[in-house]
Amino acid sequence: MKRYTLPKGFLAGAVHCGIKRKRKDLSLFYSEVPCKIAAIFTKNVVKAAPVILAIKQLKKTDSIRAVVVNSGNANCMTGKRGLNDAKKMARHMAKLLKVSENEVLVSSTGVIGRFMPMKSVIKGLATLSKEFSADGLLDAANGIITTDRFCKISARSFEIGRKMVTITGVAKGAGMIQPDMATMLCYILTDADVEKKSLKKALVSSSEDSFNAITVDGDMSTNDTVMLLANGEAGNNPIKEGTEAFKVFQKNLDEVSRDLAKMIVEDGEGAVKFMEVYVNGAKTKNDASKAALATANSLLVKCAVLGGDPNWGRIGSSIGSSGIDFDPDKMEIKLDGVVFFKKGGAVPFPKQKALSVFKGKKVKIEVDLHSGKNSAIVYSCDISGKYIKLNSDYTS
Amino acid sequence: MKRYTLPKGFLAGAVHCGIKRKRKDLSLFYSEVPCKIAAIFTKNVVKAAPVILAIKQLKKTDSIRAVVVNSGNANCMTGKRGLNDAKKMARHMAKLLKVSENEVLVSSTGVIGRFMPMKSVIKGLATLSKEFSADGLLDAANGIITTDRFCKISARSFEIGRKMVTITGVAKGAGMIQPDMATMLCYILTDADVEKKSLKKALVSSSEDSFNAITVDGDMSTNDTVMLLANGEAGNNPIKEGTEAFKVFQKNLDEVSRDLAKMIVEDGEGAVKFMEVYVNGAKTKNDASKAALATANSLLVKCAVLGGDPNWGRIGSSIGSSGIDFDPDKMEIKLDGVVFFKKGGAVPFPKQKALSVFKGKKVKIEVDLHSGKNSAIVYSCDISGKYIKLNSDYTS
Repeated sequence: MKRYTLPKGFLAGAVHCGIKRKRKDLSLFYSEVPCKIAAIFTKNVVKAAPVILAIKQLKKTDSIRAVVVNSGNANCMTGKRGLNDAKKMARHMAKLLKVSENEVLVSSTGVIGRFMPMKSVIKGLATLSKEFSADGLLDAANGIITTDRFCKISARSFEIGRKMVTITGVAKGAGMIQPDMATMLCYILTDADVEKKSLKKALVSSSEDSFNAITVDGDMSTNDTVMLLANGEAGNNPIKEGTEAFKVFQKNLDEVSRDLAKMIVEDGEGAVKFMEVYVNGAKTKNDASKAALATANSLLVKCAVLGGDPNWGRIGSSIGSSGIDFDPDKMEIKLDGVVFFKKGGAVPFPKQKALSVFKGKKVKIEVDLHSGKNSAIVYSCDISGKYIKLNSDYTS
Repeated sequence: MKRYTLPKGFLAGAVHCGIKRKRKDLSLFYSEVPCKIAAIFTKNVVKAAPVILAIKQLKKTDSIRAVVVNSGNANCMTGKRGLNDAKKMARHMAKLLKVSENEVLVSSTGVIGRFMPMKSVIKGLATLSKEFSADGLLDAANGIITTDRFCKISARSFEIGRKMVTITGVAKGAGMIQPDMATMLCYILTDADVEKKSLKKALVSSSEDSFNAITVDGDMSTNDTVMLLANGEAGNNPIKEGTEAFKVFQKNLDEVSRDLAKMIVEDGEGAVKFMEVYVNGAKTKNDASKAALATANSLLVKCAVLGGDPNWGRIGSSIGSSGIDFDPDKMEIKLDGVVFFKKGGAVPFPKQKALSVFKGKKVKIEVDLHSGKNSAIVYSCDISGKYIKLNSDYTS
């Protein structure tokens, strides 16, 4: 793995506190100075306690100092006790770090419906408060993962007004990935100085084609969180929307976000193949997204991809039932660059060519509806017996 | 299997014409006299040629004489040629049966995007036109199935004004089952005399809690068709909505429809367990349906059911992301009769009890949102590695 570093002024670390059996399960991302923050949370009506808490906290404060993340327990559907536990975690960590309570945010991921083992957590926080450093990125990235096969880090360094700026992102995914923001934790840290409003704008824009454009199984989690922390330690002039500096920042943030999103999909539970779905020529942007998502989430399409079977009829059918309006006779379907369906009928093609389709580790589905000018991309993966295996004995 | 008979005046049969390798693949349902018809077709924008044709035909005619059904080829996404092939099938069968072209409807099910092997089909129709009888029900029911493990028949006989009336239904399901009307062919025949408008009303009402209340994998087919044929041969007075006779007819039709719908789900591709999802206390009927469907279609919930794992958090999460509005703290979740979640928190229960949940062949999920007075039931099944296996090498 490439050696990634934290942006200036950020420290991180992780410990094993006992929520999970052996692996690290409690991570800390810390800034030596207050940082501005932009965040996006799950749209699931059922929100985990730390999400409810963070939304409240961010209404009261403009800057934070730290984020504590535990894996192994989602602290969700745990009622008042769960909310109190989340508060306790923030309060205790704040005390240990000598910052104010609202400057510490909490995230959780794992099983829903179990109370946090607070004794172990409180003990773990004490250890954690002594074990974080400028070298702790990899540890922290490992501490937030659950069924992930690998930890997800991406970073970019670039110049803004002669100052070197770094953006480093860490994510946790696998399973239950679906826009908007379905099960995924993502922390993007930067030492750039970015104006508060522009920071939010940049994050929302980046998420559109990254975290909101991926799906593994169509389920949407209760804990999804994407945070962008900017501490200004690079010393650049504050970046404002509309400037050249903002463009450069946005471009690099987009790259980090897309890297992480793709890694999440590649690590979809039990996934064998990576799948890119392009829908062009839709009447509206929303239609394009709906169609691409319907195809990416169709179990029958996923099975076809897994089996290396160019069964384009399932793609047409999935788009037809996605709830959007289009003329099926104008639709065009391309698999791995080969046109299979056009002008209302199958395209005759050499058998050899058809046989080569959907055989690689990465497959491409392109649909042109020829009904408008809007496009969408969705990244996804196939489904295998392993997904079923993993998820049929998760809690028991 | 119970021996079911056709209603008076109906004949049926099936032959092997060569679309599928060995099994019967061409069925006929025939009435000796013209019959009234009510039909519901898929809402998929991508409709198969025979569906497009039948919709047109039913605008021109009030009564029909026969339905020809082939399995193994969906005749869908086959453009003008496909539509011509469907027309040819209707025309040719009409000629052989000596009825008019619009009195013969066609249905197809199978692989999408391949042209019909018309030579074999035309030949098969000729054989079929000589091989149908009052004993042909089982043959015809077998001729319409594809990946189904068993053929689906249900019937009821009852009195209407001292006349014995029979309703016999035949269905094909498995895979791609989802409301509205997703991949399923269903032919319900009755010798009752029912007024045209009342016939439609009865079918729509029956479908609501049967064919529209089932889901296997969330995909929605291009060919779904439910037809109700009434030839009046029982000799009863025409049944009209609002009468006692209509109530009796509706009740029996409901039973036949629900029988068939449940059989379709029990035969879901690779399904191990049958799953009933009840959502009560929703603000609107639509909310209740959305919530029940979201749970039934959630891959994570299906996996939990397969694994016998009472992971109720996944149920809460699936309803939270279904797009409906409710207060999560009021939600109550019961699995196989045991309350697991109530008033915002997990319910403490004896471990023994929890361990017994989701272990049978039939599991029950009950959610009360306590936010209103509307309910919905959805019948579904779990998902297993077998589903993946079946669907990853279907066409190739």
